[in-house]
Amino acid sequence: MSTARQPTVTLHPLSSYTFGVKESQPEEDPSVAARLLRLQAEHATQGMRTTVEGVLVVHEHGHPHVLMLQIANTFFKLPGEALKPGEDEIDGLKRRLNHKLAPPGGAPVDWEVGELLAVWWRPNFETFMYPYIPAHITKPKEMKKVYLVHLPDKKLLSVPKNMKLLAVPLFELYDNAARYGPQLAALPHLLSRFNFVYE
Amino acid sequence: MSTARQPTVTLHPLSSYTFGVKESQPEEDPSVAARLLRLQAEHATQGMRTTVEGVLVVHEHGHPHVLMLQIANTFFKLPGEALKPGEDEIDGLKRRLNHKLAPPGGAPVDWEVGELLAVWWRPNFETFMYPYIPAHITKPKEMKKVYLVHLPDKKLLSVPKNMKLLAVPLFELYDNAARYGPQLAALPHLLSRFNFVYE
Repeated sequence: MSTARQPTVTLHPLSSYTFGVKESQPEEDPSVAARLLRLQAEHATQGMRTTVEGVLVVHEHGHPHVLMLQIANTFFKLPGEALKPGEDEIDGLKRRLNHKLAPPGGAPVDWEVGELLAVWWRPNFETFMYPYIPAHITKPKEMKKVYLVHLPDKKLLSVPKNMKLLAVPLFELYDNAARYGPQLAALPHLLSRFNFVYE
Repeated sequence: MSTARQPTVTLHPLSSYTFGVKESQPEEDPSVAARLLRLQAEHATQGMRTTVEGVLVVHEHGHPHVLMLQIANTFFKLPGEALKPGEDEIDGLKRRLNHKLAPPGGAPVDWEVGELLAVWWRPNFETFMYPYIPAHITKPKEMKKVYLVHLPDKKLLSVPKNMKLLAVPLFELYDNAARYGPQLAALPHLLSRFNFVYE
């Protein structure tokens, strides 16, 4: 049947989740330029970097909202980070989600990493990434994989105190690369194939 | 393993396919306004319209290209059409692909309809569609489902002579809603999760 091609995902209301605060997690790089320099330095010994990010979706009044981190009131990002060389993508994403969002001191959360939503490529040691490998590029410098994370019906999440966790509605992200950048603005497209059920 | 979440799809070079010409297929509606009026008229008796479209991907020099129809040198569209009420989506898409692209007189092609890429919603009898149901809309007027079509290694396709079939590279579509519209410009995002193998 046709519906087999459209995965059903249950979304829970934002109010099902409780948000705490934990210690600051300063960004590893003080600037975009510093991040690209570190990428270049690590690339010399480790080759292409693999980064993983998670898309956590809740709903408010039956409309999907994506949880994202805001740093210094300006910069939005999905939870996730670069993997170590050879690290498994799914295990690595779970570890990064725990580092960023699990309550301190407790048992690590067993995150349910679901469908792959998008793959982004950085062809050079530059800011731009593309959802394909550009023509004539044989050795991209970074690959970023974005996965849907299936949330349980309740959860306590702890957010580093130098960050805010925001629930941003799809209609705010859509066609809004000017504010959110091309990767976050594409999330409404990437999520459209799911049959969301609003609990 | 992580790769289970990233379907592998083999792409064949554009030169594997042969293109013929067949009789004109005039557009059912002479204008966008006429199309929306017909949607409204049919909606009164049939309810929400379901439309299906197919994304046929080939490659040139190892870069994916999407086959799309150009009508009157201006308007680009994917092959596909509105379904009849109650018609199965996958069977219906195969019939529309045959109508548009199968050689006349021969046996119908057995199209391999693959993954669902996107779902678009038309909330009102207006031009705009969104990759989600906008807030406060309970009865959208049209739903459009976009499926990946897996092409065999060779095929003869016949194109109605009032249309052109173009192979448009992903890098041309990307970030180019001004020329291709938001639905076609989103295809690079929607295809990024596939592991394309270039034969």
